[in-house]
Amino acid sequence: MIIHTALFRLKHANGSAQEAAVLKAADILVAIPGVENFQKLRQVSAKNEFTFCFSMEFNSQKEYDFYNVHPDHVAFVQGKWIPEVANFMEVDYVKI
Amino acid sequence: MIIHTALFRLKHANGSAQEAAVLKAADILVAIPGVENFQKLRQVSAKNEFTFCFSMEFNSQKEYDFYNVHPDHVAFVQGKWIPEVANFMEVDYVKI
Repeated sequence: MIIHTALFRLKHANGSAQEAAVLKAADILVAIPGVENFQKLRQVSAKNEFTFCFSMEFNSQKEYDFYNVHPDHVAFVQGKWIPEVANFMEVDYVKI
Repeated sequence: MIIHTALFRLKHANGSAQEAAVLKAADILVAIPGVENFQKLRQVSAKNEFTFCFSMEFNSQKEYDFYNVHPDHVAFVQGKWIPEVANFMEVDYVKI
């Protein structure tokens, strides 16, 4: 099992309608086959620059690869992520 | 509920006995009152520099504050974390 997380900070103001729209648009990702335990998280530590995180789980690299190239994911990245995210970092985990 | 994570990279070689010793030493943190769902994770994305993560949950800021100043946590930070961690980043989450 792979836990995939994307930490990010939006170009939009905290609490803005544009911010809410990006978070809402991410709902399209939940329905992609292989995506499990999708979570939208607020990053609250003052020790880094990020303000949100999307977290999801894949059973294996096969499902992760399928997600990466899925049209709904690609459309989200092109339509919302690239134009509206100011900075991000991807972090992936496996349990030890 | 607050999810507290500490991403890190050790000064030690991958798979070394020193690496295993640091991971083992972190077991002391599990017993600190208020620490829930403690997990040791391997960071596997090539898109950041970190190789491990400790993750835990606190019911509220009260338990988080208790953990931060707990002697077992302070001793771990002083004895293992500061001397043996090359780089780290703390990331904390709350569910949206």
